[in-house]
Amino acid sequence: MEGGGDRIEEEVTIVNSPADQISHLALDIGGSLIKMVYFSTSREQLIDNTQNNSSRDSNEVSKGSKKRCLINGRLYFIMFETSKINECLDFIASKQLHNRGVHHCGFPASDTNTIKATGGGAFRFADLFKEKLGIILDKVEEMSSLVSGVNFLLKAVPSEAFTYENGKRNYVQIDHNDLYPYLLVNIGSGVSMIKVDGDGKYERVSGTSVGGGTFWGLGKLLTKCKSFDDLLEMSHRGNNRVIDMLVGDIYGGMDYLKIGLSSTTIASSFGKAVSENKELEEYKPEDVARSLLRMISNNIGQIAYLNALRFGLKKIFFGGYFIRGHAYTMDTISVAVDFWSKGEAKAMFLRHEGFLGALGAFMNYEAVEGFPNSVCPIREKTSNPFVGDLNDNGIIECCVQATS
Amino acid sequence: MEGGGDRIEEEVTIVNSPADQISHLALDIGGSLIKMVYFSTSREQLIDNTQNNSSRDSNEVSKGSKKRCLINGRLYFIMFETSKINECLDFIASKQLHNRGVHHCGFPASDTNTIKATGGGAFRFADLFKEKLGIILDKVEEMSSLVSGVNFLLKAVPSEAFTYENGKRNYVQIDHNDLYPYLLVNIGSGVSMIKVDGDGKYERVSGTSVGGGTFWGLGKLLTKCKSFDDLLEMSHRGNNRVIDMLVGDIYGGMDYLKIGLSSTTIASSFGKAVSENKELEEYKPEDVARSLLRMISNNIGQIAYLNALRFGLKKIFFGGYFIRGHAYTMDTISVAVDFWSKGEAKAMFLRHEGFLGALGAFMNYEAVEGFPNSVCPIREKTSNPFVGDLNDNGIIECCVQATS
Repeated sequence: MEGGGDRIEEEVTIVNSPADQISHLALDIGGSLIKMVYFSTSREQLIDNTQNNSSRDSNEVSKGSKKRCLINGRLYFIMFETSKINECLDFIASKQLHNRGVHHCGFPASDTNTIKATGGGAFRFADLFKEKLGIILDKVEEMSSLVSGVNFLLKAVPSEAFTYENGKRNYVQIDHNDLYPYLLVNIGSGVSMIKVDGDGKYERVSGTSVGGGTFWGLGKLLTKCKSFDDLLEMSHRGNNRVIDMLVGDIYGGMDYLKIGLSSTTIASSFGKAVSENKELEEYKPEDVARSLLRMISNNIGQIAYLNALRFGLKKIFFGGYFIRGHAYTMDTISVAVDFWSKGEAKAMFLRHEGFLGALGAFMNYEAVEGFPNSVCPIREKTSNPFVGDLNDNGIIECCVQATS
Repeated sequence: MEGGGDRIEEEVTIVNSPADQISHLALDIGGSLIKMVYFSTSREQLIDNTQNNSSRDSNEVSKGSKKRCLINGRLYFIMFETSKINECLDFIASKQLHNRGVHHCGFPASDTNTIKATGGGAFRFADLFKEKLGIILDKVEEMSSLVSGVNFLLKAVPSEAFTYENGKRNYVQIDHNDLYPYLLVNIGSGVSMIKVDGDGKYERVSGTSVGGGTFWGLGKLLTKCKSFDDLLEMSHRGNNRVIDMLVGDIYGGMDYLKIGLSSTTIASSFGKAVSENKELEEYKPEDVARSLLRMISNNIGQIAYLNALRFGLKKIFFGGYFIRGHAYTMDTISVAVDFWSKGEAKAMFLRHEGFLGALGAFMNYEAVEGFPNSVCPIREKTSNPFVGDLNDNGIIECCVQATS
């Protein structure tokens, strides 16, 4: 570990861990993707720890009747496609991720091979995990996981939230005393909109079936893209004006100023395909992907804004794998929220957007097993090669607190 | 004319017209479709008038300084595709629709060949009409036309509005004293949402680019359908569960009751296409059309409801060519409004849904030329072969009031 960084909690003990010690795995098994979070203390960290934290190594303290210690390590984030769940099972088996390293601090390993899991797949694939790996999926409620994950990120990880304007990220300082209420818009295969009023206080107030699965599914049918990232990449190069019907197309190039619509406003997504005698194959897949992305991002931004308005929420956080740190997606959502709210609301994004549910499930170990009691990131700087300025689903250096 | 029917105004004079007298044409030229309304007194009506209204034939009265008379006739409704605008021009030329029959009641014909027109095409095609037919398009603002059209229909045409439940139309008695405010959702190529507070009092409060042009445009690319009606007809035979990802698909067949989602709720429109290794051609076009229709109808219903909620509007009227009296479309919109409003709001539909703007432009003749001052439908019964119980874009028997 380099430097020791901005540790939040100081009164507890740092424990060096064995090399390549991987522990604490949590899963969010969605309709399209499996998101995995795991905590690991690597050989590299061991060396770093030795160099930098020697004075604090391997100490344990007693606090009240419980022993507590902090284990330095990193949270890692990985995704698999749900349709390729065997790759996920193989990965877990090969890394022995499910043999959680609860022998840190001298605590005995748990008897059961349970893994915290959320998302519909925690139900759907429970038997498969049991049969193939002998793992019991300990189900964590989906909305609860999302909220826990976001609250953790907003409170514990510096520079987690940002707005996106004119192609630039502007990191937002979160005032912990003025965080609630906010609207969380999680864009997975479908979209959930959750009003969050505090830790564990939330309500799913809306949603839409037009989400990431729609972009990917329709995009696959329309463009024959090989993957979600392939589709996103295509959209980056496309021009939506080729297929979308703009206000100017209807009004002969003129604006429709009376109702505030400029000639370049999209009047009808894919509307130009109506009157042009062109087959699908005659359109560039890039243009199709672009129109699709714009349609879906704009729609989500609009419905999110209407729900924020309904409950008087000023802060809207967008998460979920759909966003993928993709500039055009964030730009469209930001513009939509700005347009519909007449500048009064701001869309905010999260650097670990894709792993909210998985992180929340990970946080849930606390409640049932007392380990970890908390996860405190000890460094998260853009200078860290693991958490660069790009969207990264970045590794979080942190310490896990253990009690027995 | 049969019977004479439910005339609203009685103190004025009925005038027989020459056979096949066609007059007063108004157009709504949208991005995808041209909607035409014209008033005509046909030979058939002449005979009927002779039989039934002989005592009132050909009288004229003086009222104040102005002469007024009522001319019996019918409002006819026709559509053309905007991309085939020449068919529309030919139709007008062949029927001499633009030589408006203002010589009723002995009033001189107007000097200028002007036609009331609304929609973006009134701007875009102004030169074409001038050049080909010598017609000047007198532009009527689009939102104003829509509102005038709906207000006319709701006030003057019996059994215009209905709700749609369990495959059945339930006609709604409109209380003229309790009509406002309401939300008008006009689904053309794009969607406009207009809060209407009274005659001429309205505001466009929202809209979405995911409208009829999206259904038709995307549908054309995905299914190679020949026409809008072809696409609608296909959707009627399709099954959306083949491509849509349902809650049950994610949760292994289970409901997600904690947040009120049953296993058959659509979690992600087109989401199943993500994980299935199927090309577009391997899906039945009927199933694709069904998923698309459901996605778009549901989305419009949801955004409409959120806007109704925002302004405390209890009545939502849906119009525009997209609906086309199509059972599944109306059912989806009705269910969406019911679902999101928890039964508090009702979606209402209009029998002349596709011609709101064109009718409104037609009404606008009054303001500029004093002819007609009003249009009063004199009969509109489901027993009338022209206005059957199906969605009909039905002919309205009416009388046009003329003053000089």
